[in-house]
Amino acid sequence: MHIGMVGLGRMGGNMAERLRAAGIEVTGFDMDPNTTEVATLADLVAAVPSPRRVIWVMVPAGDPTAAVLRDLADLLDEGDVVVEGGNSHFQDDRDNAATLSAQGVKYVDVGVSGGIWGRDNGYGLMAGGDTEDIELLLPVFDALRPEGPREEGFVHAGPVGAGHYAKMVHNGIEYGLMQAYAEGYQLLEAREDLIPDVAPVMNAWRRGTVVRSWLLDLMVRAVQEDPGLDDITGWVEDSGEGRWTIMEAIDDAVPVPVISAALFARFSSRLPNSSAMRAVAALRQQFGGHAVRPAEQGTAGTPDPAATED
Amino acid sequence: MHIGMVGLGRMGGNMAERLRAAGIEVTGFDMDPNTTEVATLADLVAAVPSPRRVIWVMVPAGDPTAAVLRDLADLLDEGDVVVEGGNSHFQDDRDNAATLSAQGVKYVDVGVSGGIWGRDNGYGLMAGGDTEDIELLLPVFDALRPEGPREEGFVHAGPVGAGHYAKMVHNGIEYGLMQAYAEGYQLLEAREDLIPDVAPVMNAWRRGTVVRSWLLDLMVRAVQEDPGLDDITGWVEDSGEGRWTIMEAIDDAVPVPVISAALFARFSSRLPNSSAMRAVAALRQQFGGHAVRPAEQGTAGTPDPAATED
Amino acid sequence: MHIGMVGLGRMGGNMAERLRAAGIEVTGFDMDPNTTEVATLADLVAAVPSPRRVIWVMVPAGDPTAAVLRDLADLLDEGDVVVEGGNSHFQDDRDNAATLSAQGVKYVDVGVSGGIWGRDNGYGLMAGGDTEDIELLLPVFDALRPEGPREEGFVHAGPVGAGHYAKMVHNGIEYGLMQAYAEGYQLLEAREDLIPDVAPVMNAWRRGTVVRSWLLDLMVRAVQEDPGLDDITGWVEDSGEGRWTIMEAIDDAVPVPVISAALFARFSSRLPNSSAMRAVAALRQQFGGHAVRPAEQGTAGTPDPAATED
Amino acid sequence: MHIGMVGLGRMGGNMAERLRAAGIEVTGFDMDPNTTEVATLADLVAAVPSPRRVIWVMVPAGDPTAAVLRDLADLLDEGDVVVEGGNSHFQDDRDNAATLSAQGVKYVDVGVSGGIWGRDNGYGLMAGGDTEDIELLLPVFDALRPEGPREEGFVHAGPVGAGHYAKMVHNGIEYGLMQAYAEGYQLLEAREDLIPDVAPVMNAWRRGTVVRSWLLDLMVRAVQEDPGLDDITGWVEDSGEGRWTIMEAIDDAVPVPVISAALFARFSSRLPNSSAMRAVAALRQQFGGHAVRPAEQGTAGTPDPAATED
Repeated sequence: MHIGMVGLGRMGGNMAERLRAAGIEVTGFDMDPNTTEVATLADLVAAVPSPRRVIWVMVPAGDPTAAVLRDLADLLDEGDVVVEGGNSHFQDDRDNAATLSAQGVKYVDVGVSGGIWGRDNGYGLMAGGDTEDIELLLPVFDALRPEGPREEGFVHAGPVGAGHYAKMVHNGIEYGLMQAYAEGYQLLEAREDLIPDVAPVMNAWRRGTVVRSWLLDLMVRAVQEDPGLDDITGWVEDSGEGRWTIMEAIDDAVPVPVISAALFARFSSRLPNSSAMRAVAALRQQFGGHAVRPAEQGTAGTPDPAATED
Repeated sequence: MHIGMVGLGRMGGNMAERLRAAGIEVTGFDMDPNTTEVATLADLVAAVPSPRRVIWVMVPAGDPTAAVLRDLADLLDEGDVVVEGGNSHFQDDRDNAATLSAQGVKYVDVGVSGGIWGRDNGYGLMAGGDTEDIELLLPVFDALRPEGPREEGFVHAGPVGAGHYAKMVHNGIEYGLMQAYAEGYQLLEAREDLIPDVAPVMNAWRRGTVVRSWLLDLMVRAVQEDPGLDDITGWVEDSGEGRWTIMEAIDDAVPVPVISAALFARFSSRLPNSSAMRAVAALRQQFGGHAVRPAEQGTAGTPDPAATED
Repeated sequence: MHIGMVGLGRMGGNMAERLRAAGIEVTGFDMDPNTTEVATLADLVAAVPSPRRVIWVMVPAGDPTAAVLRDLADLLDEGDVVVEGGNSHFQDDRDNAATLSAQGVKYVDVGVSGGIWGRDNGYGLMAGGDTEDIELLLPVFDALRPEGPREEGFVHAGPVGAGHYAKMVHNGIEYGLMQAYAEGYQLLEAREDLIPDVAPVMNAWRRGTVVRSWLLDLMVRAVQEDPGLDDITGWVEDSGEGRWTIMEAIDDAVPVPVISAALFARFSSRLPNSSAMRAVAALRQQFGGHAVRPAEQGTAGTPDPAATED
Repeated sequence: MHIGMVGLGRMGGNMAERLRAAGIEVTGFDMDPNTTEVATLADLVAAVPSPRRVIWVMVPAGDPTAAVLRDLADLLDEGDVVVEGGNSHFQDDRDNAATLSAQGVKYVDVGVSGGIWGRDNGYGLMAGGDTEDIELLLPVFDALRPEGPREEGFVHAGPVGAGHYAKMVHNGIEYGLMQAYAEGYQLLEAREDLIPDVAPVMNAWRRGTVVRSWLLDLMVRAVQEDPGLDDITGWVEDSGEGRWTIMEAIDDAVPVPVISAALFARFSSRLPNSSAMRAVAALRQQFGGHAVRPAEQGTAGTPDPAATED
């Protein structure tokens, strides 16, 4: 099999490597002239055998993906299949599919999980689209997914949009899992009198316990590399999928207290002196005459022992 | 009527003033020699008319209150009444009452709300104890509570402990209310394109709206005095009653997502670089190769645009 | 002054009454032939004096409002002013204004708070739009708002959209406030040994305390009418503004743990046997052999004492 | 090696089996005459070789454990070691150790994770106590823990109390993890148009994804056995360790929004018509005239479309 890969960054580049290692031929295109293997997207399309060309798109979500899909709609022929493997919102998939289907081009959306470990371990894959297109792509999916039973690393989740929906929910869960471990980590750290060293405790959870997981393995790796996690700051980005998950939950009237708490903890981590908490401080001062911290004192340091009432 | 007041600090001193203004005689004792009106607690007891002396205790919760109650148990006579008006935990009230009842001394616990505004506006009062003792104290309660119907500023809530229980729940609610206004404040601030000036918007909520309240009045006062709340930091203390509320809720299997979220927001406000969030950052770096902030960069500032995945 | 009112339901009808009581002439149109005062929207427009007609629209948000605005765009003349007083999303206001401005018609959005109490107490008003249009409408705002200083019941919050944005945030806060009182209510109820009767305790919070508010007054009214709140069920609707508040918060990266917890509590109240909690029960059974409740047993009743491990 | 096991229930019985399979001799005592292998606790002590007897206690936390420890204090000799392997609160461990040390008997607390799977897979073990006692017990720990490196299934976490502290935090994390998967499950279920069948999607997360874990494996097992989880109800018990985790977090001022949200979701699952939500419903009716559900209608069913305002 021979496919085209658009986008040879951290994800696309690694995936191309894994595909080739599995015997799948890949021609890659990237905006970066030092990385790309063909000069233009048209050259990429020309290089991939027809009919039923397969072009896998792995570029940043939003405008970059939309631009590539528009260009591909013009370049491809009826029956060709475009795979959107990036982090598109599942609601954009239907529009993407419509853009392509006007030219008879088919569309499959695939949520890809595994991060930088995927090249060696394989990627977890969730696909949305028509069965005939999914079947055409099975050799590609088999090459990308981890070893083991196919159904434990790949799923045809449903129609167009289902792949990215499943991936979005996956990421929402991921936010909750990470925050749960993080709260536990802080609780272990809080009692140095009982737990002088946190890393060995978490390491001992890796086998036999209820909380064992791949994220725990990574957590152990992190605290073994940097005990105390002193080399980094607790300033945590979010990339959008957690936000989407909560917005979808609100649309569906599904309570997501854990996933939202995890997202808000990230927001708060980036707001060391938030206006909301200044408002609470101001209220306490107003009704109770409580001491507040003047701005010049900053937010670091220990509690004011004089502030003892609500 | 003539009562004794133990503790002439911000709360006790103001309450003594309000009582005197209402025609109640007050003899006050304080550990501070510059403040006290009698030399010793024994002198205070001697100054208050017997039988059925009334001694109101208004000292810090915990050991100071316990010490005063032990001393009073020795000094008072059968039928005398001690009022614990401080922020004792309701579970301590039963022990306190037992300490005193061994000497035939009666015990009433009173939750007092109103802060520094109470001297002029009156205090909201919640009392626990025996009916005959509450009735003895009614003139005192009437002098302390705000103008208006007695039942809108005073309640005999139940047996010993009920006063502080009601006050504890009151404070738990207060945490939730404050955080709700604070989140709203931050949301108004977040859209300067729509809301160029937050203070007038909150001011306009004071009449006719569903959210009008005394806390809103104070919020408006705060933002009018310090638009932007720039003079203080968002580093918010808690005094214990919010913690007690949640612990009681857990004992009773009552879900308190809002009160707990308000408390945790305060905890987080004091943890600008928490180990939990360093753990989340470390996990993201482990699985996704995401950029983290090195420690020397600190937590202030703007997002790293390169960090765009979960 | 003489204005047109489109929509004579619970809100619009009451507002028309209040306006007339203040000496403002109102001609009303409603889809309900039994309620309307003129036969058609065109008749309404014809009845209102020109130039600078004022038409206040008070119909359900979404399609009904959009339809009325489109019709008014055709019927009105340059310089006329349409007031959107319903619960439109603030992001729709810009589109609404554009629809009308194509015909030279001006647009003002007004968030209206006060519910069924507004007719007698006055409505809290938050307006967005151009200053010259706001000034034209001041007599109308003064008639609708509560007695007292204008700035405590009315605000020109900012440009088009600001009125509904301020009202959205107001409602988000309202969700948090209601849930805070509700959690406190449940905590009072949980300890019947200490608090034999909840209503008098809440009643006593109405004066002097930190938590006094209009919502508390209503809470007291509710528990006085129906002690135990036994006549209703804990199945709570939401109307959309809470959802919008959280979505906006997520867009702005503002943590809103309290407002979201309040919304999710409503969602949960409508999911007595949610799939999420069945998933947790299933997990506990899987790893611990814990007893689960078979479906035929339902979710009512008391805990299974045999289920004693995590 | 030859040890005594007190408590031959689900946990203790399985552990005895696993120990014997590894060549460790076990004499077991249980209150149940059909299960016990010796007539009395004294017989058990007599059966275990001295000096440095090892008695592993695996009975319900609280009074049963305390009673066994008191009896053992009388029966054992200086240098003997008691292992408390149940779910004691870590703060009780110090008292337990003191009770025994008065007789020269040593105490080790061990948190044991793994549930009903432990017999075959091995148990995750976290121990607290003196190093010389831990070393004496290493053959027992090695027999109980899973295959693989010792440090990935066992840890000497710290002094007495550290084992149960680590296990408590482990269980707190577990609450958060379970709720995160549960929320994700409900989100997958909510969009049947996209995800017609949830089980294969979760199954496909087992390899390569970020969320892969043992709990996920169990989740898949559950939905494969009972698609839709229709055979059980969403009524979820809690066993106390989640509560303890949050109380400890509050004592340490550590924010635990995710763990607490998970616990409160369980509380709510057991309160299908909670007084808090009846309070919210009552408030909505009071200010907005919103329809409420009369009690006779119950909480099941679909939203009231008439209730469309906050």
